[in-house]
Amino acid sequence: MIDPQRYPRLSRISTPADLRQFDESELPAIAEELRGYLIEQVALVGGHFGAGLGVIELTVALHWLFDTPTDRIVWDVGHQTYPHKILTGRRDTIHTVKQKDGVAPFPKREESEYDTFGVGHSSTSISAALGMAIALQARGDDRKVVAVIGDGAMTAGMAFEALNHGGGMEPEPNLLVILNDNQMSISENVGALTKMLGRLSGSRALNAIREGGKKLLGDKNGAPAKFVKRWEEHWKGMFVPSTLFEEMGFHYTGPIDGHDMDALVSTMKTLKGLKGPQLLHIITTKGKGYELAEGDQIGYHAVSPFDPAKGMVAKAGAKKPTYTDIFGDWLCDMAAADPRLMGITPAMREGSGLVRFSREYPQRYFDVAIAEQHAVTLAAGMACEGAKPVCAIYSTFLQRGYDQLVHDVAIQNLDVLFAIDRGGVVGPDGATHAGNLDLSFLRCVPNMVVMAPADEDECRKMLSTGHRYEGPAAVRYPRGTGPGAAIEPTLDTLPIGRGEVRRRGSRIALLAFGAIVPAAQAVGDELGLTVANMRFVKPLDRELIIELARTHEGFVTLEDNVVAGGAGSGVAELLAAEGITLPVLHLGLPDEFQHHASREQLLAEAGLDVAGIRAVVLQRWPGLFGPARAAV
Amino acid sequence: MIDPQRYPRLSRISTPADLRQFDESELPAIAEELRGYLIEQVALVGGHFGAGLGVIELTVALHWLFDTPTDRIVWDVGHQTYPHKILTGRRDTIHTVKQKDGVAPFPKREESEYDTFGVGHSSTSISAALGMAIALQARGDDRKVVAVIGDGAMTAGMAFEALNHGGGMEPEPNLLVILNDNQMSISENVGALTKMLGRLSGSRALNAIREGGKKLLGDKNGAPAKFVKRWEEHWKGMFVPSTLFEEMGFHYTGPIDGHDMDALVSTMKTLKGLKGPQLLHIITTKGKGYELAEGDQIGYHAVSPFDPAKGMVAKAGAKKPTYTDIFGDWLCDMAAADPRLMGITPAMREGSGLVRFSREYPQRYFDVAIAEQHAVTLAAGMACEGAKPVCAIYSTFLQRGYDQLVHDVAIQNLDVLFAIDRGGVVGPDGATHAGNLDLSFLRCVPNMVVMAPADEDECRKMLSTGHRYEGPAAVRYPRGTGPGAAIEPTLDTLPIGRGEVRRRGSRIALLAFGAIVPAAQAVGDELGLTVANMRFVKPLDRELIIELARTHEGFVTLEDNVVAGGAGSGVAELLAAEGITLPVLHLGLPDEFQHHASREQLLAEAGLDVAGIRAVVLQRWPGLFGPARAAV
Repeated sequence: MIDPQRYPRLSRISTPADLRQFDESELPAIAEELRGYLIEQVALVGGHFGAGLGVIELTVALHWLFDTPTDRIVWDVGHQTYPHKILTGRRDTIHTVKQKDGVAPFPKREESEYDTFGVGHSSTSISAALGMAIALQARGDDRKVVAVIGDGAMTAGMAFEALNHGGGMEPEPNLLVILNDNQMSISENVGALTKMLGRLSGSRALNAIREGGKKLLGDKNGAPAKFVKRWEEHWKGMFVPSTLFEEMGFHYTGPIDGHDMDALVSTMKTLKGLKGPQLLHIITTKGKGYELAEGDQIGYHAVSPFDPAKGMVAKAGAKKPTYTDIFGDWLCDMAAADPRLMGITPAMREGSGLVRFSREYPQRYFDVAIAEQHAVTLAAGMACEGAKPVCAIYSTFLQRGYDQLVHDVAIQNLDVLFAIDRGGVVGPDGATHAGNLDLSFLRCVPNMVVMAPADEDECRKMLSTGHRYEGPAAVRYPRGTGPGAAIEPTLDTLPIGRGEVRRRGSRIALLAFGAIVPAAQAVGDELGLTVANMRFVKPLDRELIIELARTHEGFVTLEDNVVAGGAGSGVAELLAAEGITLPVLHLGLPDEFQHHASREQLLAEAGLDVAGIRAVVLQRWPGLFGPARAAV
Repeated sequence: MIDPQRYPRLSRISTPADLRQFDESELPAIAEELRGYLIEQVALVGGHFGAGLGVIELTVALHWLFDTPTDRIVWDVGHQTYPHKILTGRRDTIHTVKQKDGVAPFPKREESEYDTFGVGHSSTSISAALGMAIALQARGDDRKVVAVIGDGAMTAGMAFEALNHGGGMEPEPNLLVILNDNQMSISENVGALTKMLGRLSGSRALNAIREGGKKLLGDKNGAPAKFVKRWEEHWKGMFVPSTLFEEMGFHYTGPIDGHDMDALVSTMKTLKGLKGPQLLHIITTKGKGYELAEGDQIGYHAVSPFDPAKGMVAKAGAKKPTYTDIFGDWLCDMAAADPRLMGITPAMREGSGLVRFSREYPQRYFDVAIAEQHAVTLAAGMACEGAKPVCAIYSTFLQRGYDQLVHDVAIQNLDVLFAIDRGGVVGPDGATHAGNLDLSFLRCVPNMVVMAPADEDECRKMLSTGHRYEGPAAVRYPRGTGPGAAIEPTLDTLPIGRGEVRRRGSRIALLAFGAIVPAAQAVGDELGLTVANMRFVKPLDRELIIELARTHEGFVTLEDNVVAGGAGSGVAELLAAEGITLPVLHLGLPDEFQHHASREQLLAEAGLDVAGIRAVVLQRWPGLFGPARAAV
């Protein structure tokens, strides 16, 4: 429970209605309490951190000024919504964030009526808010709709598509877009738009006015200063030259200091009364108010539990490398061996493991901003000229480059390697970040080679295999660490379309794909069954499958992908095409979106841990346990 | 063969090297011959028409000025590349366009070294060209790269993503983007960008200079006039206020008249010598030089064969309605019955059948420009506020809204209906337009209801079913006409997840999905087999499948989707989950990208016509023909 001594105001705020009982003059103090509480709570349990600290004032101002949940606030991405959750009924449960049955790390419609639109992926907010505004106007409902989008999210094409539509519509939609400009995605934001926003914020005319106002009136918070500030905001809109947003049909206001509560409230009061598409540009600092986070905005984007007095402490000792680490090391090693290699990331340098590569090979490193579509077709263009591009994209975000993968890479059979991190169950980030579908949506695409490693060494070999292969290939590996296989530092490859038998047993063969191989092996060991590590989802090892079908009375296919259209489904298709009729049991992820929980919890829930696999195999073949066991 | 009397210059041009033998002064005459030849040839065989006429001068100027194919020209979309194909080795075969084994209707790398990048979908050119430019610069190759993109294509997010990346890069990429501004997509271009380009072209400063120049020098084509023109072009760049493109880091030149060969050549000569990202804005007229096409730019976007002297003549008599017509009529009828219905199209009003709806329900009609991503999330936002959006998107283009379908619609289980035209085999437009993958990439998505109609009446009923269903649903129907079923004008629905037995036979059951049902029925009739029209790809009719499995000795699944992960694969998964072991034969499209040909030719090639189905069924069950035949 919240401590009323330390948080005299916040402890009285369970919902925005409570917040709106306070006078405007108390809002800065409430913001400070909210900031303190956020630091305390996230330090306790970990979670997204810097983005939330950056929008403390904005969150307070929005819920104080707008009649939420009647008015709609649509948060983009959702990294920044912990303060929003605290003010909207989840103050006392925010410490359960990301945990099974706890608060979701992103807005989620099922969780709260204040969460107007579920997110996780970036750049959807203007589209969603515009849809809401149109539907509301159509039924004569004049509630307000506000989208809050970061400058990073603004680099994605769909934000531009929404601006183009919303700014060109007649009749005009009533919509306020707040551009929260903190110069950051998860890492530094890149691209021309960022430079443009920088010019806008730094324009001399603007600063001159600001300075003039200060000199003239001294005291920052007195009433005359407020008047000047308001006039100043107005002036800024006039002075700043035609912006991209104005060209896109939005009325532009700003930039204003997003940590200045007076400026925020007074400006938004004005904008609230205006019709048509409005864009308010605010400047904020990621990590604001927690010095260490301001100083290391990337490191404090998301945190593990830490002592707020000391900050995060690097853990000592050698840790097991994650698949992300393995990819990052491989990328540098292969870059050294092959000057044609180019590394591409859509704004995920840290998450995808390209930090070292970006330092060692800056000329071959391309952060293209949050732009999966462009990332994939850029790679296709590079491949046309003999380069060997490696596109590093999380499974869930590759959905946004799907057409480009099909239309630009696969149809033309171009030599692009997709390094797909976070394939399969992801866990605490919830359904929006799950990589449960990729084997299905990749396997149906002609020309693709699709690999899934059983361990760390195989991951490295598959990356080398995909790189050497002259055509479109994908290596799809899971979040986190693997079983701990020793990694050979070579750039050796694997034969395309060949699996391996890990264990010869009898009666039933377990055909496992990727991260689930160790669990399959454990069950196979225990029950005396054959275990194959299939390695290739596409092309399948036809020879091996036929041989196993001839020598076993049934198959179990295993994968950390939905069963629908997954790798196991491919095995069944192959059997059918060969005219082989054999009992097959498909184990994989369920046909539903999994909620947030730990990776292990979700795998267990799906029956994909050792206990679950054993149970369902024995249920299907009850006689197995006795004689097979005996055969070991 | 080309007539050297009518085409004295063009008949001597087989490749751009021949073109470059001509003096600059002859280029306008060459352009006129090319225009005449294009009209003659397309009138003969049909094909894309208006866009090609609009870029005649540009095409001649580019191939004359740049050293193609060493220099790279990347055409966006590809509707406009017939003139390019005529100048690059395909003059004498252009009359085979779209036909099996003939010239492809879009650039295709396999077809010609002048086709640097395969297209069909829009807005990929800047990304691809940037990738090429980067790869070339990396290996110290200074050949030129030019992307030609329309103002319609510029509305798609990925074009913006590419501008953001290319304009913000250091070192700067050497890339010329030519914005071919004709104010059109297939229909009128919409959105804020179009308005902005209109302002740019119509700016008073610009016109004043242009008029001044004219007054001063009189004769348009004399040498002094040329000098002024060049100076004028320069001035325009100076006068026009900061444009979106400049804000995105591109050096902007224009707008210039894209039908003025002198202006084009002289401006591009200058730009060719410049480094860094350049954008040249040219204004053209779709259909230029063929009066009827200029007057009806939508009608002449693509044409059937016609007499150039008379133009296209509407065919008399009642025609069989296409599935597109059925959707269009249903949309209007359902809009009349349900005021919550909203119709959304990403710039495909004509192709998707929304012309009548756009006239009758302009307030509920949303053309969002070429923006599939935004279209889907806009629909999700509308659904949040109780509207009933219908998103009409071709199967192949839905690939570009895939993440939005998963992340914004399906995860939130929102009430959006996808009307998916051109599902399955599409035909003459080739692999880029094929709808061969949709059942696979939709079936793996939880919460989706996926339907495929066997005939016209069922299509209408499925649309009503999807509309009434309160969650994400898709109706996927083929290009062209169906079997000719009588269409009931009601808004009746079908029970979700229920198929129908069309014919009770013996031994083998044919389980058919969608457009292939009539062929399946013909084979079933002939061989005395059971035929089920499954209707629902998801959820499958479990009860029916189990019942048929118990009463038959084998299944044949049939669909016009790839076998990999398709509807038939779902049937096999269901059998496996039920512990039923039954021989299954999956018939569907092959695991390869099909080339352009007629829909019938491609279905026959895939063995999905009556003869093909019969042959493969009898091959699998050779004994079937005798006794089963007798049982009829």
